[in-house]
Amino acid sequence: MKRVAILGSGVMGSALAFPLADNGYAVALCGTAFDRPIIARLRQDRWHPGLKREMPASVEPYAIEEVDRALAGASILILGVVSEAVGAMARLAAAHLAAGACIVNVAKGVEAEPDGKLRTLPELVSDALPGPRRSDTAVVAVAGPCKALELAARRPTRVVFAAAGPAALARCGQAFATDYYRVELSEDIRGVEICAAAKNGYAIGLGVCDGIDAGGEGSWDNLRAAVFTQAVAEMAGLARLFEGRAESAYGLAGLGDLFVTYRQGRNQTLGRLLGQGMAAGQALAEMRGATVEGVEAVRKIHIGLQGALSNPQLARDFPLLDAIHAVLFRGAPAGAISRSLAGAV
Amino acid sequence: MKRVAILGSGVMGSALAFPLADNGYAVALCGTAFDRPIIARLRQDRWHPGLKREMPASVEPYAIEEVDRALAGASILILGVVSEAVGAMARLAAAHLAAGACIVNVAKGVEAEPDGKLRTLPELVSDALPGPRRSDTAVVAVAGPCKALELAARRPTRVVFAAAGPAALARCGQAFATDYYRVELSEDIRGVEICAAAKNGYAIGLGVCDGIDAGGEGSWDNLRAAVFTQAVAEMAGLARLFEGRAESAYGLAGLGDLFVTYRQGRNQTLGRLLGQGMAAGQALAEMRGATVEGVEAVRKIHIGLQGALSNPQLARDFPLLDAIHAVLFRGAPAGAISRSLAGAV
Repeated sequence: MKRVAILGSGVMGSALAFPLADNGYAVALCGTAFDRPIIARLRQDRWHPGLKREMPASVEPYAIEEVDRALAGASILILGVVSEAVGAMARLAAAHLAAGACIVNVAKGVEAEPDGKLRTLPELVSDALPGPRRSDTAVVAVAGPCKALELAARRPTRVVFAAAGPAALARCGQAFATDYYRVELSEDIRGVEICAAAKNGYAIGLGVCDGIDAGGEGSWDNLRAAVFTQAVAEMAGLARLFEGRAESAYGLAGLGDLFVTYRQGRNQTLGRLLGQGMAAGQALAEMRGATVEGVEAVRKIHIGLQGALSNPQLARDFPLLDAIHAVLFRGAPAGAISRSLAGAV
Repeated sequence: MKRVAILGSGVMGSALAFPLADNGYAVALCGTAFDRPIIARLRQDRWHPGLKREMPASVEPYAIEEVDRALAGASILILGVVSEAVGAMARLAAAHLAAGACIVNVAKGVEAEPDGKLRTLPELVSDALPGPRRSDTAVVAVAGPCKALELAARRPTRVVFAAAGPAALARCGQAFATDYYRVELSEDIRGVEICAAAKNGYAIGLGVCDGIDAGGEGSWDNLRAAVFTQAVAEMAGLARLFEGRAESAYGLAGLGDLFVTYRQGRNQTLGRLLGQGMAAGQALAEMRGATVEGVEAVRKIHIGLQGALSNPQLARDFPLLDAIHAVLFRGAPAGAISRSLAGAV
């Protein structure tokens, strides 16, 4: 039986076991140190407490101490851990992974180097591998609108897999694709990853509109739609500026994922508090230490933009991102979001 | 005082009086035969019953019998009537309009000629003008996400004005643009108009997702986002195929307006009924004779596609529109919408 391993048994990593199991794979689901209660419960009756569902019969749970057995013979490793842990987990996995295996990365984010160069998570995964493994291990990113509980319920879902070359793409696409989990393939891994990270930041801007909307009598749909449109235009600009392709912003990783992200989640919640008039420091405190991915995305992409553009260029070409940055980090009021959307006349 | 005339005193035409009045224009608001109660009320106390708001002091109401006085000296005429009436009203207006005036058209739609050639409403407006006026009357289309009540409340709104040449565009843009009504300019009038019409059809497809979603326990956000993404891709393809530019689909007239349209209105209502399992004939009957713009848009664009493409090409390049057409007119079940979104693997 063909084998796939998943490192990290949170909802997103675990949900990917469903199409793989349906395609006849044996799936080793290996929890991290944070996932012990999940693995314990899976061992008991195959119930996944996050997905609120029984896992398929061909999914075998492993604790992190058994990572060597979990990864043995796997042709594909899914990294299903949070972005902060991606490098360390890739390094750990590399010691056990067969030559020629693919790594499929789920978390989203970018890192900004001191000179403003942006590095995507798949690049950080590659960097974390020991030298000899870097060239023979393809890293594939998965992006697009995918709520884990819907995937685990086998509801129609369409995502994009991105990698630098076609061979690993085709191999992973075939392993995952089912009639309910539909996979597009893209070689624009930079563009896909930059959009996937940026959309969390833009979701904060859309959350601000929700906060303004909640405050008064009538709706503010015109503003929300203008912000959404501008966000897509800026994602296209970001992809282009940082060595990706604008088309990725117009697809599943860009506008498709923003379309799901803007309506719920921490980015939206934070934005809503800001839109209701709360200062950034207080709004972040209200989040009680929860990671708000969009905040880090905005901070890092803004560093990248400052490395690539003059301040007037940045304000002209990325006015919305600059305004979200100003609200989060430079004491600007939420109204800066709306004011950033000038017309052309 | 500079003068502008609006023909049709429904909510959208009337809302455009607000930025014009704020820019110092005298606005003649001329109701059609259907608008008599609105005009009567405006004469009484300036209250617009549709907008639920007092009109600005520089707006003067006229009945259709006074159309000559309403249009006298106007440098811009706004056609604020439904798509079916656009040709007749343009012809009526031409008899009274000063040479060199612009016509700004608000309604959306396309007409399919027997050979499958699509004509946009601005083209129909031009066609309706007497020969000598055709060359000296620029037609400007206004598109993008704009709910009339929000505009009349002076909430931030961003739209696109499109025309074949830059002179009329610049003139109209300057007349309308305020700090809350922000105007982008586009010379892609074909692309803008085709997207503006098509988005009503795609809103039916998104309504189908809402109907499916309402039926069960969990959400169907992944499907909805996949349909939205596909709709934008197909609008880009339609713009390209029918002599416009794909970029218009990625802007306010395309994804921006779809973003507002999909959440409410008749297109969404009809789609929801279909998604809940109702047959097309019954769902249309439930609409009680109300015009569902998207139904006609899908029918006419599909005629255009059949004129331009072979059936296999149509199904390959516009699977979502073809599926919506199949549900509306060829007895297909609503599940065809989801099945049309195959992956690439």
